[in-house]
Amino acid sequence: MMPIVSIVGKSGSGKTTLLEKVVAELTKRGYRVGTIKHDVHGFEIDYEGKDSWRHKKAGAKTVVLSSPDKIAVIKDVDEEWNPFMLGFSFVDDADIIITEGYKKADYPKIEVIRKAKSTKPICRKDKNLIAVASDIRFKCKDVPCVDINDAKGIADLIEERFLQKEACREKSCLMVNGKKISLKPFIDKLLAEAIKGMIKSLKGCRNHGDIEIRIKA
Amino acid sequence: MMPIVSIVGKSGSGKTTLLEKVVAELTKRGYRVGTIKHDVHGFEIDYEGKDSWRHKKAGAKTVVLSSPDKIAVIKDVDEEWNPFMLGFSFVDDADIIITEGYKKADYPKIEVIRKAKSTKPICRKDKNLIAVASDIRFKCKDVPCVDINDAKGIADLIEERFLQKEACREKSCLMVNGKKISLKPFIDKLLAEAIKGMIKSLKGCRNHGDIEIRIKA
Repeated sequence: MMPIVSIVGKSGSGKTTLLEKVVAELTKRGYRVGTIKHDVHGFEIDYEGKDSWRHKKAGAKTVVLSSPDKIAVIKDVDEEWNPFMLGFSFVDDADIIITEGYKKADYPKIEVIRKAKSTKPICRKDKNLIAVASDIRFKCKDVPCVDINDAKGIADLIEERFLQKEACREKSCLMVNGKKISLKPFIDKLLAEAIKGMIKSLKGCRNHGDIEIRIKA
Repeated sequence: MMPIVSIVGKSGSGKTTLLEKVVAELTKRGYRVGTIKHDVHGFEIDYEGKDSWRHKKAGAKTVVLSSPDKIAVIKDVDEEWNPFMLGFSFVDDADIIITEGYKKADYPKIEVIRKAKSTKPICRKDKNLIAVASDIRFKCKDVPCVDINDAKGIADLIEERFLQKEACREKSCLMVNGKKISLKPFIDKLLAEAIKGMIKSLKGCRNHGDIEIRIKA
Protein backbone atom coordinates (compact mmCIF):
# COMPACT_ATOMS: atom_id res chain seq x y z
CA MET A 1 0.00 0.00 0.00
CA MET A 2 1.30 3.42 -0.92
CA PRO A 3 1.86 6.17 1.64
CA ILE A 4 -1.01 8.55 2.46
CA VAL A 5 -0.34 12.19 3.38
CA SER A 6 -3.11 14.63 4.30
CA ILE A 7 -3.35 18.35 3.68
CA VAL A 8 -5.60 19.74 6.39
CA GLY A 9 -6.71 23.14 7.59
CA LYS A 10 -9.75 25.26 8.23
CA SER A 11 -12.27 25.88 5.49
CA GLY A 12 -10.95 28.56 3.12
CA SER A 13 -7.35 28.20 4.29
CA GLY A 14 -6.18 27.12 0.83
CA LYS A 15 -6.02 23.34 1.08
CA THR A 16 -7.05 22.74 -2.54
CA THR A 17 -4.60 25.33 -3.84
CA LEU A 18 -1.67 23.84 -1.92
CA LEU A 19 -2.71 20.31 -2.90
CA GLU A 20 -2.82 21.36 -6.59
CA LYS A 21 0.69 22.74 -6.41
CA VAL A 22 2.10 19.77 -4.50
CA VAL A 23 0.43 17.25 -6.85
CA ALA A 24 1.79 19.15 -9.87
CA GLU A 25 5.28 19.23 -8.36
CA LEU A 26 5.31 15.51 -7.46
CA THR A 27 3.93 14.64 -10.91
CA LYS A 28 6.70 16.73 -12.51
CA ARG A 29 9.21 14.70 -10.50
CA GLY A 30 7.83 11.50 -12.04
CA TYR A 31 5.61 10.22 -9.24
CA ARG A 32 2.14 8.89 -9.86
CA VAL A 33 -0.23 10.65 -7.50
CA GLY A 34 -3.77 9.81 -6.42
CA THR A 35 -5.90 12.21 -4.40
CA ILE A 36 -8.81 11.83 -2.01
CA LYS A 37 -11.04 14.74 -1.10
CA HIS A 38 -12.92 14.40 2.16
CA ASP A 39 -16.31 15.99 1.82
CA VAL A 40 -18.20 15.64 5.07
CA HIS A 41 -21.17 17.57 3.74
CA GLY A 42 -21.58 15.46 0.60
CA PHE A 43 -20.99 16.42 -3.00
CA GLU A 44 -22.73 16.50 -6.35
CA ILE A 45 -21.09 14.91 -9.34
CA ASP A 46 -23.89 13.37 -11.32
CA TYR A 47 -26.52 15.42 -13.06
CA GLU A 48 -30.19 14.83 -13.76
CA GLY A 49 -30.89 13.20 -17.07
CA LYS A 50 -27.41 11.75 -17.65
CA ASP A 51 -27.31 8.00 -18.17
CA SER A 52 -25.27 7.45 -15.00
CA TRP A 53 -27.86 9.49 -13.09
CA ARG A 54 -30.64 7.36 -14.58
CA HIS A 55 -28.86 4.11 -13.58
CA LYS A 56 -28.44 5.41 -10.04
CA LYS A 57 -32.00 6.69 -9.78
CA ALA A 58 -33.31 3.28 -10.90
CA GLY A 59 -31.69 1.72 -7.86
CA ALA A 60 -28.09 0.80 -8.74
CA LYS A 61 -25.90 1.10 -5.66
CA THR A 62 -22.77 1.44 -7.75
CA VAL A 63 -22.62 2.95 -11.23
CA VAL A 64 -19.47 2.69 -13.31
CA LEU A 65 -18.80 4.61 -16.52
CA SER A 66 -16.03 3.17 -18.63
CA SER A 67 -14.33 4.64 -21.69
CA PRO A 68 -10.98 3.79 -23.30
CA ASP A 69 -9.13 6.45 -21.31
CA LYS A 70 -11.23 7.18 -18.25
CA ILE A 71 -13.34 5.44 -15.61
CA ALA A 72 -15.82 7.04 -13.26
CA VAL A 73 -17.52 5.35 -10.33
CA ILE A 74 -20.39 6.64 -8.24
CA LYS A 75 -21.16 4.49 -5.23
CA ASP A 76 -23.57 4.62 -2.30
CA VAL A 77 -22.08 3.54 1.00
CA ASP A 78 -23.68 2.77 4.35
CA GLU A 79 -20.87 4.35 6.30
CA GLU A 80 -17.91 6.50 5.46
CA TRP A 81 -14.84 4.69 4.16
CA ASN A 82 -11.46 5.62 5.58
CA PRO A 83 -8.60 6.76 3.30
CA PHE A 84 -6.89 3.38 3.57
CA MET A 85 -9.96 1.54 2.28
CA LEU A 86 -10.46 4.12 -0.46
CA GLY A 87 -6.84 3.84 -1.51
CA PHE A 88 -6.84 0.05 -1.39
CA SER A 89 -10.02 -0.18 -3.43
CA PHE A 90 -9.67 2.61 -5.95
CA VAL A 91 -6.09 3.87 -6.17
CA ASP A 92 -4.09 0.86 -7.30
CA ASP A 93 -1.64 2.66 -9.52
CA ALA A 94 -0.12 5.51 -7.55
CA ASP A 95 3.15 6.02 -5.66
CA ILE A 96 1.43 8.21 -3.10
CA ILE A 97 -2.01 9.43 -2.09
CA ILE A 98 -2.50 13.05 -1.04
CA THR A 99 -5.75 13.73 0.75
CA GLU A 100 -7.55 17.03 1.14
CA GLY A 101 -9.01 16.92 4.63
CA TYR A 102 -9.10 14.10 7.23
CA LYS A 103 -7.73 16.28 10.00
CA LYS A 104 -8.81 13.73 12.62
CA ALA A 105 -7.46 10.65 10.88
CA ASP A 106 -4.24 8.90 11.73
CA TYR A 107 -2.10 9.84 8.71
CA PRO A 108 0.90 12.16 8.38
CA LYS A 109 -0.50 15.64 7.84
CA ILE A 110 0.45 19.10 6.71
CA GLU A 111 -1.63 21.93 8.11
CA VAL A 112 -2.39 25.00 6.01
CA ILE A 113 -2.90 28.21 7.99
CA ARG A 114 -3.87 31.43 6.23
CA LYS A 115 -3.90 34.49 8.44
CA ALA A 116 -7.00 35.91 6.77
CA LYS A 117 -8.89 32.85 8.03
CA SER A 118 -7.32 31.90 11.32
CA THR A 119 -4.00 32.13 13.08
CA LYS A 120 -4.54 29.15 15.36
CA PRO A 121 -3.25 25.76 14.27
CA ILE A 122 -5.79 22.97 14.66
CA CYS A 123 -3.26 20.12 14.65
CA ARG A 124 -0.46 21.55 16.78
CA LYS A 125 -0.73 18.70 19.27
CA ASP A 126 -1.25 16.01 16.66
CA LYS A 127 1.66 13.56 16.61
CA ASN A 128 1.01 13.06 12.90
CA LEU A 129 1.69 16.69 11.99
CA ILE A 130 4.78 16.80 9.78
CA ALA A 131 4.74 20.42 8.61
CA VAL A 132 2.85 23.70 8.69
CA ALA A 133 2.36 25.73 5.49
CA SER A 134 1.39 29.29 6.28
CA ASP A 135 1.60 32.95 5.34
CA ILE A 136 2.48 33.64 8.98
CA ARG A 137 5.96 32.84 10.27
CA PHE A 138 5.22 30.31 12.95
CA LYS A 139 7.70 29.14 15.46
CA CYS A 140 7.05 25.43 15.37
CA LYS A 141 9.04 23.43 17.82
CA ASP A 142 8.79 20.00 16.33
CA VAL A 143 7.92 20.43 12.66
CA PRO A 144 9.09 22.67 9.82
CA CYS A 145 6.97 25.70 8.95
CA VAL A 146 7.15 26.53 5.24
CA ASP A 147 5.67 29.33 3.19
CA ILE A 148 2.08 28.67 2.09
CA ASN A 149 3.18 28.87 -1.56
CA ASP A 150 6.26 26.72 -1.18
CA ALA A 151 5.00 23.60 -2.95
CA LYS A 152 8.57 22.58 -3.74
CA GLY A 153 9.48 22.62 -0.06
CA ILE A 154 6.44 20.48 0.77
CA ALA A 155 7.20 18.13 -2.12
CA ASP A 156 10.82 17.80 -0.90
CA LEU A 157 9.57 16.85 2.52
CA ILE A 158 7.08 14.32 1.16
CA GLU A 159 9.63 12.85 -1.21
CA GLU A 160 12.28 12.50 1.46
CA ARG A 161 9.99 10.97 4.05
CA PHE A 162 7.63 8.82 2.03
CA LEU A 163 8.92 8.17 -1.46
CA GLN A 164 12.47 6.97 -1.08
CA LYS A 165 12.01 3.78 0.81
CA GLU A 166 11.31 1.46 -2.09
CA ALA A 167 13.17 -1.42 -0.46
CA CYS A 168 11.11 -1.22 2.71
CA ARG A 169 7.73 -1.34 0.99
CA GLU A 170 5.49 -4.13 2.05
CA LYS A 171 5.08 -7.08 -0.29
CA SER A 172 1.50 -7.92 0.51
CA CYS A 173 -1.47 -5.94 1.64
CA LEU A 174 -4.15 -7.75 3.62
CA MET A 175 -7.64 -6.47 4.38
CA VAL A 176 -10.07 -8.41 6.55
CA ASN A 177 -13.62 -7.11 6.93
CA GLY A 178 -12.60 -3.80 5.40
CA LYS A 179 -9.78 -3.23 7.90
CA LYS A 180 -6.09 -3.29 7.11
CA ILE A 181 -4.19 -5.96 8.99
CA SER A 182 -0.67 -4.89 9.96
CA LEU A 183 1.87 -7.48 8.98
CA LYS A 184 5.37 -7.78 10.41
CA PRO A 185 7.98 -7.92 7.62
CA PHE A 186 8.51 -11.66 8.07
CA ILE A 187 4.78 -12.49 7.91
CA ASP A 188 4.34 -10.05 5.03
CA LYS A 189 6.97 -11.87 2.98
CA LEU A 190 5.79 -15.31 4.08
CA LEU A 191 2.21 -14.60 3.01
CA ALA A 192 3.32 -13.18 -0.34
CA GLU A 193 5.64 -16.10 -1.09
CA ALA A 194 3.16 -18.75 0.08
CA ILE A 195 0.42 -17.38 -2.16
CA LYS A 196 2.75 -17.04 -5.13
CA GLY A 197 3.80 -20.65 -4.53
CA MET A 198 0.20 -21.85 -4.31
CA ILE A 199 -0.94 -20.28 -7.54
CA LYS A 200 2.12 -20.60 -9.71
CA SER A 201 1.11 -23.91 -11.28
CA LEU A 202 -2.36 -22.65 -12.22
CA LYS A 203 -2.97 -21.87 -15.88
CA GLY A 204 -2.32 -18.20 -16.59
CA CYS A 205 -0.30 -17.64 -13.42
CA ARG A 206 3.18 -18.83 -14.31
CA ASN A 207 4.73 -15.45 -15.07
CA HIS A 208 2.70 -13.74 -12.48
CA GLY A 209 2.73 -10.03 -11.84
CA ASP A 210 0.34 -8.32 -9.48
CA ILE A 211 -1.93 -10.74 -7.63
CA GLU A 212 -5.28 -9.91 -6.10
CA ILE A 213 -7.41 -12.38 -4.20
CA ARG A 214 -10.80 -11.80 -2.67
CA ILE A 215 -12.44 -14.37 -0.44
CA LYS A 216 -16.02 -13.86 0.63
CA ALA A 217 -16.98 -14.91 4.14
CA MET B 1 -17.49 -12.60 -8.40
CA MET B 2 -21.09 -11.73 -9.14
CA PRO B 3 -22.75 -12.49 -12.52
CA ILE B 4 -22.55 -9.88 -15.29
CA VAL B 5 -25.38 -9.46 -17.80
CA SER B 6 -25.25 -6.97 -20.68
CA ILE B 7 -28.04 -4.98 -22.29
CA VAL B 8 -26.92 -4.27 -25.84
CA GLY B 9 -28.40 -2.75 -28.97
CA LYS B 10 -27.93 -0.03 -31.52
CA SER B 11 -27.68 3.58 -30.44
CA GLY B 12 -31.14 4.93 -29.65
CA SER B 13 -32.73 1.50 -29.33
CA GLY B 14 -33.63 2.11 -25.68
CA LYS B 15 -30.88 0.36 -23.75
CA THR B 16 -30.85 2.88 -20.89
CA THR B 17 -34.63 2.79 -20.57
CA LEU B 18 -34.74 -1.01 -20.41
CA LEU B 19 -31.80 -1.09 -18.01
CA GLU B 20 -33.56 1.41 -15.71
CA LYS B 21 -36.67 -0.75 -15.59
CA VAL B 22 -34.77 -3.99 -15.06
CA VAL B 23 -32.58 -2.46 -12.33
CA ALA B 24 -35.67 -1.05 -10.59
CA GLU B 25 -37.42 -4.44 -10.81
CA LEU B 26 -34.42 -6.40 -9.47
CA THR B 27 -33.93 -3.84 -6.70
CA LYS B 28 -37.61 -4.21 -5.79
CA ARG B 29 -37.06 -7.94 -5.52
CA GLY B 30 -34.30 -7.32 -2.96
CA TYR B 31 -31.21 -7.72 -5.09
CA ARG B 32 -28.28 -5.32 -4.88
CA VAL B 33 -27.47 -4.19 -8.39
CA GLY B 34 -24.39 -2.50 -9.82
CA THR B 35 -24.29 -1.10 -13.34
CA ILE B 36 -21.57 -0.38 -15.85
CA LYS B 37 -22.10 1.90 -18.81
CA HIS B 38 -19.75 1.38 -21.74
CA ASP B 39 -18.99 4.71 -23.32
CA VAL B 40 -16.62 4.19 -26.22
CA HIS B 41 -16.63 7.87 -27.11
CA GLY B 42 -15.75 9.05 -23.61
CA PHE B 43 -17.86 10.97 -21.13
CA GLU B 44 -17.83 14.13 -19.06
CA ILE B 45 -18.55 13.93 -15.37
CA ASP B 46 -16.26 16.47 -13.79
CA TYR B 47 -16.66 20.19 -14.31
CA GLU B 48 -14.20 23.04 -14.49
CA GLY B 49 -13.52 24.74 -11.21
CA LYS B 50 -14.74 21.93 -8.95
CA ASP B 51 -12.19 20.65 -6.45
CA SER B 52 -12.11 17.20 -8.05
CA TRP B 53 -11.48 18.86 -11.43
CA ARG B 54 -8.64 20.89 -9.89
CA HIS B 55 -7.03 17.77 -8.37
CA LYS B 56 -7.21 16.02 -11.74
CA LYS B 57 -5.93 19.00 -13.68
CA ALA B 58 -2.94 19.27 -11.31
CA GLY B 59 -1.88 15.78 -12.38
CA ALA B 60 -3.65 13.25 -10.14
CA LYS B 61 -4.33 10.06 -12.08
CA THR B 62 -7.08 9.01 -9.71
CA VAL B 63 -9.29 11.39 -7.77
CA VAL B 64 -11.61 10.09 -5.08
CA LEU B 65 -14.37 12.10 -3.41
CA SER B 66 -15.60 10.64 -0.17
CA SER B 67 -18.59 11.62 1.93
CA PRO B 68 -20.47 9.70 4.63
CA ASP B 69 -22.98 8.29 2.15
CA LYS B 70 -21.36 8.45 -1.27
CA ILE B 71 -18.04 7.89 -2.99
CA ALA B 72 -17.03 9.06 -6.44
CA VAL B 73 -13.90 8.07 -8.31
CA ILE B 74 -12.50 9.57 -11.50
CA LYS B 75 -9.58 7.64 -12.89
CA ASP B 76 -7.34 7.88 -15.96
CA VAL B 77 -6.51 4.54 -17.53
CA ASP B 78 -3.98 3.60 -20.20
CA GLU B 79 -6.29 1.08 -21.78
CA GLU B 80 -9.92 0.18 -21.46
CA TRP B 81 -10.82 -2.07 -18.54
CA ASN B 82 -13.15 -4.98 -19.18
CA PRO B 83 -16.38 -5.41 -17.17
CA PHE B 84 -14.84 -8.15 -15.04
CA MET B 85 -11.99 -5.89 -13.93
CA LEU B 86 -14.40 -3.02 -13.35
CA GLY B 87 -16.69 -5.25 -11.30
CA PHE B 88 -13.83 -6.79 -9.31
CA SER B 89 -12.34 -3.41 -8.52
CA PHE B 90 -15.35 -1.20 -7.96
CA VAL B 91 -18.52 -3.24 -7.42
CA ASP B 92 -17.82 -5.27 -4.31
CA ASP B 93 -21.27 -5.15 -2.84
CA ALA B 94 -23.75 -6.26 -5.50
CA ASP B 95 -25.54 -9.51 -6.32
CA ILE B 96 -25.38 -8.78 -10.03
CA ILE B 97 -23.93 -6.30 -12.50
CA ILE B 98 -26.00 -5.11 -15.44
CA THR B 99 -24.00 -3.41 -18.18
CA GLU B 100 -25.25 -0.99 -20.80
CA GLY B 101 -23.26 -1.87 -23.90
CA TYR B 102 -20.37 -4.32 -24.41
CA LYS B 103 -22.00 -6.00 -27.38
CA LYS B 104 -18.71 -7.62 -28.38
CA ALA B 105 -17.74 -8.86 -24.93
CA ASP B 106 -18.15 -12.40 -23.69
CA TYR B 107 -21.02 -11.97 -21.21
CA PRO B 108 -24.65 -13.12 -21.35
CA LYS B 109 -26.54 -10.45 -23.23
CA ILE B 110 -30.01 -9.16 -23.98
CA GLU B 111 -30.44 -7.28 -27.24
CA VAL B 112 -32.86 -4.36 -27.49
CA ILE B 113 -34.35 -3.81 -30.95
CA ARG B 114 -36.65 -0.86 -31.60
CA LYS B 115 -38.25 -0.85 -35.02
CA ALA B 116 -37.91 2.93 -35.41
CA LYS B 117 -34.13 2.45 -35.27
CA SER B 118 -33.44 -0.89 -36.87
CA THR B 119 -35.10 -4.22 -37.41
CA LYS B 120 -31.91 -6.22 -37.71
CA PRO B 121 -30.48 -7.92 -34.64
CA ILE B 122 -26.78 -7.37 -34.15
CA CYS B 123 -26.20 -10.33 -31.86
CA ARG B 124 -28.34 -13.02 -33.50
CA LYS B 125 -25.34 -15.29 -33.97
CA ASP B 126 -23.79 -14.53 -30.61
CA LYS B 127 -23.75 -17.63 -28.38
CA ASN B 128 -24.08 -15.31 -25.37
CA LEU B 129 -27.45 -13.91 -26.46
CA ILE B 130 -30.03 -14.95 -23.87
CA ALA B 131 -33.04 -12.85 -24.96
CA VAL B 132 -34.30 -10.22 -27.36
CA ALA B 133 -36.42 -7.30 -26.10
CA SER B 134 -38.25 -5.61 -28.94
CA ASP B 135 -41.36 -3.81 -30.17
CA ILE B 136 -41.33 -6.18 -33.14
CA ARG B 137 -42.48 -9.77 -32.71
CA PHE B 138 -39.39 -11.70 -33.63
CA LYS B 139 -39.28 -15.38 -34.24
CA CYS B 140 -36.17 -16.28 -32.32
CA LYS B 141 -35.20 -19.89 -32.58
CA ASP B 142 -32.94 -20.23 -29.60
CA VAL B 143 -33.80 -17.43 -27.22
CA PRO B 144 -36.99 -15.86 -25.86
CA CYS B 145 -38.21 -12.63 -27.46
CA VAL B 146 -40.01 -10.41 -24.95
CA ASP B 147 -41.77 -7.08 -25.31
CA ILE B 148 -39.42 -4.09 -25.12
CA ASN B 149 -41.31 -2.83 -22.04
CA ASP B 150 -41.47 -6.17 -20.27
CA ALA B 151 -38.91 -5.47 -17.56
CA LYS B 152 -40.54 -8.10 -15.32
CA GLY B 153 -40.06 -10.75 -17.97
CA ILE B 154 -36.39 -9.80 -18.33
CA ALA B 155 -35.96 -9.69 -14.56
CA ASP B 156 -37.56 -13.17 -14.27
CA LEU B 157 -35.10 -14.49 -16.80
CA ILE B 158 -32.10 -12.90 -15.08
CA GLU B 159 -33.27 -14.05 -11.67
CA GLU B 160 -33.82 -17.61 -12.80
CA ARG B 161 -30.54 -17.93 -14.66
CA PHE B 162 -28.11 -15.92 -12.58
CA LEU B 163 -29.42 -15.23 -9.11
CA GLN B 164 -30.56 -18.54 -7.72
CA LYS B 165 -27.36 -20.47 -7.57
CA GLU B 166 -26.05 -19.27 -4.24
CA ALA B 167 -24.57 -22.66 -3.41
CA CYS B 168 -22.53 -22.77 -6.60
CA ARG B 169 -20.90 -19.38 -6.10
CA GLU B 170 -17.17 -19.39 -6.10
CA LYS B 171 -15.39 -18.99 -2.77
CA SER B 172 -12.36 -17.09 -3.99
CA CYS B 173 -11.73 -14.73 -6.83
CA LEU B 174 -8.19 -14.52 -8.19
CA MET B 175 -6.79 -11.85 -10.50
CA VAL B 176 -3.26 -11.96 -11.85
CA ASN B 177 -1.96 -9.02 -13.85
CA GLY B 178 -5.49 -7.68 -14.17
CA LYS B 179 -6.89 -10.90 -15.66
CA LYS B 180 -9.30 -13.22 -13.95
CA ILE B 181 -7.93 -16.71 -13.39
CA SER B 182 -10.57 -19.42 -13.73
CA LEU B 183 -10.48 -21.78 -10.80
CA LYS B 184 -11.95 -25.27 -10.75
CA PRO B 185 -14.22 -25.73 -7.69
CA PHE B 186 -11.64 -27.86 -5.88
CA ILE B 187 -8.83 -25.34 -6.40
CA ASP B 188 -11.18 -22.48 -5.57
CA LYS B 189 -12.03 -24.03 -2.23
CA LEU B 190 -8.44 -25.10 -1.54
CA LEU B 191 -7.12 -21.57 -2.13
CA ALA B 192 -9.82 -20.01 0.05
CA GLU B 193 -9.28 -22.49 2.91
CA ALA B 194 -5.46 -22.33 2.72
CA ILE B 195 -5.48 -18.54 2.94
CA LYS B 196 -8.01 -18.51 5.76
CA GLY B 197 -5.77 -21.03 7.57
CA MET B 198 -2.66 -18.96 7.00
CA ILE B 199 -4.06 -15.75 8.36
CA LYS B 200 -6.28 -16.97 11.15
CA SER B 201 -3.66 -16.65 13.88
CA LEU B 202 -2.79 -13.06 12.92
CA LYS B 203 -4.05 -10.30 15.20
CA GLY B 204 -7.40 -8.99 13.97
CA CYS B 205 -8.12 -11.99 11.74
CA ARG B 206 -9.60 -14.55 14.11
CA ASN B 207 -13.24 -13.93 13.32
CA HIS B 208 -12.55 -13.17 9.75
CA GLY B 209 -15.13 -12.05 7.23
CA ASP B 210 -14.27 -10.93 3.74
CA ILE B 211 -10.57 -11.20 2.94
CA GLU B 212 -8.71 -9.23 0.31
CA ILE B 213 -5.05 -9.64 -0.46
CA ARG B 214 -2.98 -7.73 -2.97
CA ILE B 215 0.56 -8.74 -3.79
CA LYS B 216 2.67 -6.45 -5.95
CA ALA B 217 5.05 -8.08 -8.41
